Amino acid sequence: MPDYSAPLRDMKFVLNELLDSGSHYQSLNNCEELSPDLLDAIIDSGAKFAENIAFPINRSGDEQGCSFKDGKVTIPDGYKEAFKRWGEGGWQALSIPTKDGGQGLPGSTGICVGEMVGSCNWSFSMYTGLASAPITCLMNGGDEEQKKTFLPKLLSGEWAGTMCLTESHCGSDVGLLRSKATPNADGSYTLSGTKIFISGGEHEMTENIIHAVLARVEGAPAGTKGISLFIAPKYLINDDGSPGEFNNITCGAIEKKMGLKASATCVMNYDGAKAYLLGEENRGLDIMFKLMNTARLGTALQGLAMGEASFQGALTYAKERLQMRSLTGPKNPDGAADPIIVHPDVRRMLMTQKAFTEGSRAFIYWLAQLVDKTKYGTEEEVKQADDLLGLLTPIAKAFCTEIAQEVTYLGIQVFGGHGYIAQHGMEQLARDNRISTVYEGTTGIQSLDLIGRKVMGSGGQLLRNFTKIIYKFCEAEKDNDAMAEFIQPLSELNKEWGEITIKIGEAAMENADEIGAASVDFTFYSGYVSFAYMWAQMALLAQQKIAAGEGDADFYQAKLATARFYFQRLLPRTKAHIAAMQSGSDNLMALSEDAFSF
Amino acid sequence: MPDYSAPLRDMKFVLNELLDSGSHYQSLNNCEELSPDLLDAIIDSGAKFAENIAFPINRSGDEQGCSFKDGKVTIPDGYKEAFKRWGEGGWQALSIPTKDGGQGLPGSTGICVGEMVGSCNWSFSMYTGLASAPITCLMNGGDEEQKKTFLPKLLSGEWAGTMCLTESHCGSDVGLLRSKATPNADGSYTLSGTKIFISGGEHEMTENIIHAVLARVEGAPAGTKGISLFIAPKYLINDDGSPGEFNNITCGAIEKKMGLKASATCVMNYDGAKAYLLGEENRGLDIMFKLMNTARLGTALQGLAMGEASFQGALTYAKERLQMRSLTGPKNPDGAADPIIVHPDVRRMLMTQKAFTEGSRAFIYWLAQLVDKTKYGTEEEVKQADDLLGLLTPIAKAFCTEIAQEVTYLGIQVFGGHGYIAQHGMEQLARDNRISTVYEGTTGIQSLDLIGRKVMGSGGQLLRNFTKIIYKFCEAEKDNDAMAEFIQPLSELNKEWGEITIKIGEAAMENADEIGAASVDFTFYSGYVSFAYMWAQMALLAQQKIAAGEGDADFYQAKLATARFYFQRLLPRTKAHIAAMQSGSDNLMALSEDAFSF
Repeated sequence: MPDYSAPLRDMKFVLNELLDSGSHYQSLNNCEELSPDLLDAIIDSGAKFAENIAFPINRSGDEQGCSFKDGKVTIPDGYKEAFKRWGEGGWQALSIPTKDGGQGLPGSTGICVGEMVGSCNWSFSMYTGLASAPITCLMNGGDEEQKKTFLPKLLSGEWAGTMCLTESHCGSDVGLLRSKATPNADGSYTLSGTKIFISGGEHEMTENIIHAVLARVEGAPAGTKGISLFIAPKYLINDDGSPGEFNNITCGAIEKKMGLKASATCVMNYDGAKAYLLGEENRGLDIMFKLMNTARLGTALQGLAMGEASFQGALTYAKERLQMRSLTGPKNPDGAADPIIVHPDVRRMLMTQKAFTEGSRAFIYWLAQLVDKTKYGTEEEVKQADDLLGLLTPIAKAFCTEIAQEVTYLGIQVFGGHGYIAQHGMEQLARDNRISTVYEGTTGIQSLDLIGRKVMGSGGQLLRNFTKIIYKFCEAEKDNDAMAEFIQPLSELNKEWGEITIKIGEAAMENADEIGAASVDFTFYSGYVSFAYMWAQMALLAQQKIAAGEGDADFYQAKLATARFYFQRLLPRTKAHIAAMQSGSDNLMALSEDAFSF
Repeated sequence: MPDYSAPLRDMKFVLNELLDSGSHYQSLNNCEELSPDLLDAIIDSGAKFAENIAFPINRSGDEQGCSFKDGKVTIPDGYKEAFKRWGEGGWQALSIPTKDGGQGLPGSTGICVGEMVGSCNWSFSMYTGLASAPITCLMNGGDEEQKKTFLPKLLSGEWAGTMCLTESHCGSDVGLLRSKATPNADGSYTLSGTKIFISGGEHEMTENIIHAVLARVEGAPAGTKGISLFIAPKYLINDDGSPGEFNNITCGAIEKKMGLKASATCVMNYDGAKAYLLGEENRGLDIMFKLMNTARLGTALQGLAMGEASFQGALTYAKERLQMRSLTGPKNPDGAADPIIVHPDVRRMLMTQKAFTEGSRAFIYWLAQLVDKTKYGTEEEVKQADDLLGLLTPIAKAFCTEIAQEVTYLGIQVFGGHGYIAQHGMEQLARDNRISTVYEGTTGIQSLDLIGRKVMGSGGQLLRNFTKIIYKFCEAEKDNDAMAEFIQPLSELNKEWGEITIKIGEAAMENADEIGAASVDFTFYSGYVSFAYMWAQMALLAQQKIAAGEGDADFYQAKLATARFYFQRLLPRTKAHIAAMQSGSDNLMALSEDAFSF
């Protein structure tokens, strides 16, 4: 991959200036110690981990890949050491409450570190991200004994973890899962079944692997109401807490994938493995859903992270690569040609990358603050933040990963033929990023959650909560001429967002397929409007900073120009999505299954 | 990759019904013998080659890849035999005039075969496509002696070929090339230089490889006016026509690429190689450009071919994969869940694939007929077809490959996680297809050619030629109520196309960057309108066929429904492109190079 340099200036702009994280942390219970200086120190330290430890093994990890032989999975060189340093550095425990043995920092701090490490090596992030799955499950569903047994070594990085949900016949439709759990006399269960697509399911990176497994207790109700959540360690735990007897959890194969080749994706066989129930029987999904919100935001972050890496690569190349002259006259008259960044269309590609990436950063970091509020806020703040996140999390997951496909696509395009070869790393970014619109719920699944469960399911209330916030922002700036170019379109789209929702809701009363027919276009529309709100806020802040004359004017001018680009060149795509939504379901449902091809 | 079955019904619909190829071939000089029956026989035979010979080595070729050791390139198993059968089957000579030793069939017949073989194995198509490069160069610039020496064995597939243009510092900007040619006393030249990205540059598939090489004769003018075209064989030719002495053309390395792994992409070193000038010194690009038009249409075909393969895979999966229930009630009550094709959003993805793929087929096949006319038509037909192709070729190359990225993207998305793993072949299609928007001129380069050279360069005439055709079509159907849903939007967009062109032209008088700033959005807009014209024609034909009641009503109803989907769900994207174009160049040029990141 291209060289990476943590975008500290922009991260700090978002955190300290746009989101005023100083006041944010002051307002949270138990987080008052997190000063802006401490946050800066964490970010700087995270940047070093990303640049010096995660980055150097990214390209080699892609080339070497994982291998499988006789049940044993070998992961690429350097990952074991990097994971050890991740644990030793305290990163795995960063955002875990102190009562559970963590460092007690709010999750938003981990998001910043996650972005940087993810930009450098998303395969590595798969191991750290999945290790946090059993941690979250234990925190939300484990009893004190279970927490004591498993949490410390998961938090120290001595043990890794997985989340075992998917089965070959059961992906989006979790209710179909068949893995079985039989109760034992000692209160434990015996697990049997096969799970697929298990990231980090098997490796020898850590002395133990703790699997969080969804399964059905014998006799449980069919569908999603009969699913329980278990913890099953690769090695059973001795009384002294050390790994003991092998627990009959074996890897049957690893997948050959498009990307993320350093991350082992395993078929896992549970063949009478001992497992421990988390929480109550048949209530596994309740615990899982708490993990899923975090996982969805973490996947949105993948879009941001890989988009940033691709943007950095493309920008560097566009300044160096000499090819043709500017149509307005030579800009590099002593060279054989001008750097390609002089060409308007190359700039269109770079600006698209920049606007999407910086917009994603602002949006995701804001959501991470809302997550903080759900954990450390007042009762009213928890409710408000929960409601907003219910609406905005599927938008973030779907939209940030979808636009990141465009960003990594453009990264290759700026490089031309050099983008297609492995040498520059641009194609690896596109391959590694391709999964982000699929796992943790596809774009289609997120969109059904958004429009069906969240918007229609709340009678529009969750949406109105947000459109009111945007409305108030627009009202406050309505007499600010300098902001008119942003406020006017934002205000109109915000109104239209509510109107189209009502129309779809009415149509859905007649025909339930209208929801699905509008769903993905509704998500894109929602994403563009949400980003417009973020960009309008950034434009306002930039104008204020420029007016205040406190320095850094180039940075704020660039922000303003990028906001303008976003509003003029990207936001009009809402027009296409509105038209598609308004066209209804007939044009999708007209064909019989057999008439799709002849 | 997924199973492939040649889409014969749709191909024959386009050829025999939409484009009336029977009359088309009758109207061409020297092509009267090509009856619809003969064309059908050629297509059926090509389908067999594609399905039985090219298809079986596609996945294995991707897995095995090419390797390089001690200057020797090893290509995957089966390619040598497949190439031999390609030659023996007469496919390489299909569309070559009889006077040059070919079968004398118009190029449009080769396009159909190219689509099917390309759907099955685009890496294989790289070898056949590149072998045709020196053939085309020789036909357009070779003397009788040169043709006699090289053409027969190239046409028989005994020898392969390449096109050597790119150098490491010189891609889109061909004027920068440095490879040198020094004249020898015997009329030949001595070549030196290094070329990169040479597909099929070295292998042992054939007994000789004939390179078409662009180089600069010593003392030639700088830039594009000093470039000459040469033929340089890997082995010099003995008097009896057999390959003799090694010609000092060596492969220095092969590229590790995102896709097309069975196609060897070589760094080629010319170290005092003997070469033969084609045509006149410094006029090499004139010959090259004739090849380039063919190559651009051939690359548009890649988009169609791989899109079709991805659509077939996704459609099969969507009918088989059971996941969740239809929101309108169970459609497969006896199964554990409904097939995912019942879900509106899965249908949105499939319909998008279908509409883009079938639209591409109609558009590209039509352009192939226009190419026929430039070769076998009357003087007036040649002029008209040449003018239309000047406008439509860059649209086809850029638009058909760009939308194919979306099609192969959606193919993965329909498969969910199963699309990301190699097993089902969907990710290979996306990887193999990713280069299509890059090589043979990127989308940016095509767009500059379209709006700059073709539209503005002709004072708008080339565009008006086409908008007049569309206008006449719309006028003829203006009272046809059944066609109103298509004619009205097409007519409006056709008018808007001219208006936006005038606006951009006026703005460009003030600022040359306005051309580049509008270029790619102009291409997309043009592509959507061109496809709307094709879909409107197909809708009209389908309505006529249904009214005539001659059978196959399901096929025509599906055509009509797909046209409706295209107009309602995809064509509105023109709104976003218009807005982007109208926003001008300021939002792209505002930032200084240093202000793209801080």
